[in-house]
Amino acid sequence: MARHEADVIVVGAGISGLIAARTLLDAGLTPLILEADERVGGRILTEEALPGLPVELGAQWIGDTHHRMFALASELGVETYPQYDEGETSYELAGSGVLRESEFHNRFGGELAELEKVFRLLDELAADVPPDAPWLAPLAAEWDSVTAGAWYDNQGLSPVARTLLEICTVGILAVPTVEVSFLHLLFTIQTCGVTAELFAESEGGAQTTRFVGGTGEIPKRLAALVTDHLVLDSPVQLIEHSADSVTVHCRGGLVAAGRRAIVAISPTLAGRIMYDPPLPGSRDQLTQRMPNGSAMKAFFVYDEPFWRADGLNGQLISDVGPARMSNDTCLPGDDHGVILLFLEGEQARRYGRLPVDDRRAAMTEELVRHFGDKAARPEFYVDGEWSERQWTRGCYNANMGPLVWTTYGHALAAPIGAIHWASTDTATFWSAYMEGAVEAGERAAHAVIDELR
Amino acid sequence: MARHEADVIVVGAGISGLIAARTLLDAGLTPLILEADERVGGRILTEEALPGLPVELGAQWIGDTHHRMFALASELGVETYPQYDEGETSYELAGSGVLRESEFHNRFGGELAELEKVFRLLDELAADVPPDAPWLAPLAAEWDSVTAGAWYDNQGLSPVARTLLEICTVGILAVPTVEVSFLHLLFTIQTCGVTAELFAESEGGAQTTRFVGGTGEIPKRLAALVTDHLVLDSPVQLIEHSADSVTVHCRGGLVAAGRRAIVAISPTLAGRIMYDPPLPGSRDQLTQRMPNGSAMKAFFVYDEPFWRADGLNGQLISDVGPARMSNDTCLPGDDHGVILLFLEGEQARRYGRLPVDDRRAAMTEELVRHFGDKAARPEFYVDGEWSERQWTRGCYNANMGPLVWTTYGHALAAPIGAIHWASTDTATFWSAYMEGAVEAGERAAHAVIDELR
Repeated sequence: MARHEADVIVVGAGISGLIAARTLLDAGLTPLILEADERVGGRILTEEALPGLPVELGAQWIGDTHHRMFALASELGVETYPQYDEGETSYELAGSGVLRESEFHNRFGGELAELEKVFRLLDELAADVPPDAPWLAPLAAEWDSVTAGAWYDNQGLSPVARTLLEICTVGILAVPTVEVSFLHLLFTIQTCGVTAELFAESEGGAQTTRFVGGTGEIPKRLAALVTDHLVLDSPVQLIEHSADSVTVHCRGGLVAAGRRAIVAISPTLAGRIMYDPPLPGSRDQLTQRMPNGSAMKAFFVYDEPFWRADGLNGQLISDVGPARMSNDTCLPGDDHGVILLFLEGEQARRYGRLPVDDRRAAMTEELVRHFGDKAARPEFYVDGEWSERQWTRGCYNANMGPLVWTTYGHALAAPIGAIHWASTDTATFWSAYMEGAVEAGERAAHAVIDELR
Repeated sequence: MARHEADVIVVGAGISGLIAARTLLDAGLTPLILEADERVGGRILTEEALPGLPVELGAQWIGDTHHRMFALASELGVETYPQYDEGETSYELAGSGVLRESEFHNRFGGELAELEKVFRLLDELAADVPPDAPWLAPLAAEWDSVTAGAWYDNQGLSPVARTLLEICTVGILAVPTVEVSFLHLLFTIQTCGVTAELFAESEGGAQTTRFVGGTGEIPKRLAALVTDHLVLDSPVQLIEHSADSVTVHCRGGLVAAGRRAIVAISPTLAGRIMYDPPLPGSRDQLTQRMPNGSAMKAFFVYDEPFWRADGLNGQLISDVGPARMSNDTCLPGDDHGVILLFLEGEQARRYGRLPVDDRRAAMTEELVRHFGDKAARPEFYVDGEWSERQWTRGCYNANMGPLVWTTYGHALAAPIGAIHWASTDTATFWSAYMEGAVEAGERAAHAVIDELR
């Protein structure tokens, strides 16, 4: 059996764990990252669709307020470019058939105004939610006793406005709104600034910018900085811990001893590790109640972005499906046209279960309806489903149902003895995004540095 | 490292695993049970409050339709006795102060009639739910898209009737109704027969009968029948499996090889085992979405059951709390008076976190309000909280939130290659009860016997 020693054992080599390790190294402490998978990156996964044409099966964008990520990219020498956003969005809603954005706005102006009103109300309510302690919001008990879906249902919205609201929200949470607490929705809005950042029909604040070479460059280059402190293929099974020490046991026999652990994986996966002594009941029940979302991304690569010539931006919003939303994800300096279709929530679950050819055929039909016959002839297709991946088990993040924040939220990020928690799901600014992963990794590392100094 | 071989490796020595092992043995197959804990029984836990006076921190009763449990008790030579049920229930609801049952019925007859009407409607709807496939109910999609709480809220009930309905339901599910799908509630009712069995204010169909010597006699005597095939203190960490073999690895190094595995623990705990090859995404996302409930039982032991002389049955129903319900759990042939207070759902979570003395003091006050000053002087007190127990992590059972049954329910009991699933949470008759544990253990064992014969 291999036995390693380090100051701090970090579990997971997603951005959060990598940042934690790098921060510890910079402070003169020795980290050791144990990663279950054979690769780094966690919920970031860049694949080459064609030579020189990377597509993002996982996290893809950053937004204008993602300051930590901009700084990190700059430090690592990863250049950025803006998301393409010219032309009209294509709609297919409420039996209207396919409509261009301008027609849709003419026909459904009243419904869009309803939506705006809800967004403003959400912003107002979310402003009262402390992002580091949502359970302390003055109305936390009330907001946590209702699902986001039930709250939406009670706003007296027209069916079209309610449907649009569902599509926008599922696009963020990757689960239907009836599965999450209204307080959790408000927390999500609050950690990201305002609803406009999240829910904008066109590319909003969360999705303005991409990385040259692919998002995977970020974890790859980060890993290079800590490469002497990183072991892949080492799933953690057991963490023995005392007030001032941890011994971490992996499948395969690797044992790593240290003074602290930082567990930088999603709460549900953290709950699958055995702890000795066992963790408090409230922490355990919390990890039983933070399921990861259901998301797939599907990429169609064409010889050119033919929709642009028609004045379309490659985005669709649909209640017909399979995809409810799409995006133009072409690369600058490359001639190919790339359309990304999102399958989220029930759509990911239903179509994820189908044979890939059936799934692809259903999405091809949808693309043809929106963008014409050329859409039927892609050069390349690839999709990625996250619940099948053993060391992720769902994307984009963990969502809380009713009463979880108010009952168990206090156990989300609070260290237990020598064990600290990271992962974007524990962040207070852009939780669920890469930005949150950086914040959480830094926060956990600094807490450990303070303790060991 | 110890290496064991058997035909079938059974994970968990609760009733479900013990029954599975016994059934396999009877069929001429060799089982090996691996139990994580240092004891058998799972969610059954009998402790001696005073010498000769057992109390049940876990499962306690059976009901008249629990045919498998009656047969099992008879076979094992465990005698039964009826639950005491004479006298009036004590109420404290809607600011009424403490009222006896007769007064309460006079004052709130209209509200009780509302409740009866809801029960009849629930029975009617539940009759359309196939207990082995709730997702095939004609209205499954609709019922699974709303929480039980939201459905209750929409019945136009008076506040008192709504409160009573919440208390009754939380008494069954051990989580607030906003945390569970309405389809899950209907499934629960359907697997148990009718609402009257579950929701009766007085001892209903689920709680008519107790075991002489304590419920713990059942797993103890069952374990004696399979004692050569049982290893305690062996938490399973990894199951390697192929179509026709399993290799099960425990903390501490024990390895057990067999032709099949039966995993007889709650779905959330089953999801914490590592599987190689990994299980399908739908199975994994299911186990992320079946949190165990939140329940505590607290026992006050007095020198006599003084409430009986006052014409009270020892039961209370309260919206003041801490306990929402109680029970007279005296033993026949013993002079002591024993009151059991239930803390369920939010009550278990809130009071479970307090120091035991504070919790006990709050419940003592409640007992005094209902049963008089004598209630302030118990000889003995004991309580048990289940989320702290590492190898259980919540009681009474696993509940599904919205969209879980319809999206992932198919993955609950279906075998995956050589791995079969048991535990009461997978049962189709009295799921969540001991009766369901027996059914599930028998079902899994017979499926394995059919495959290996």
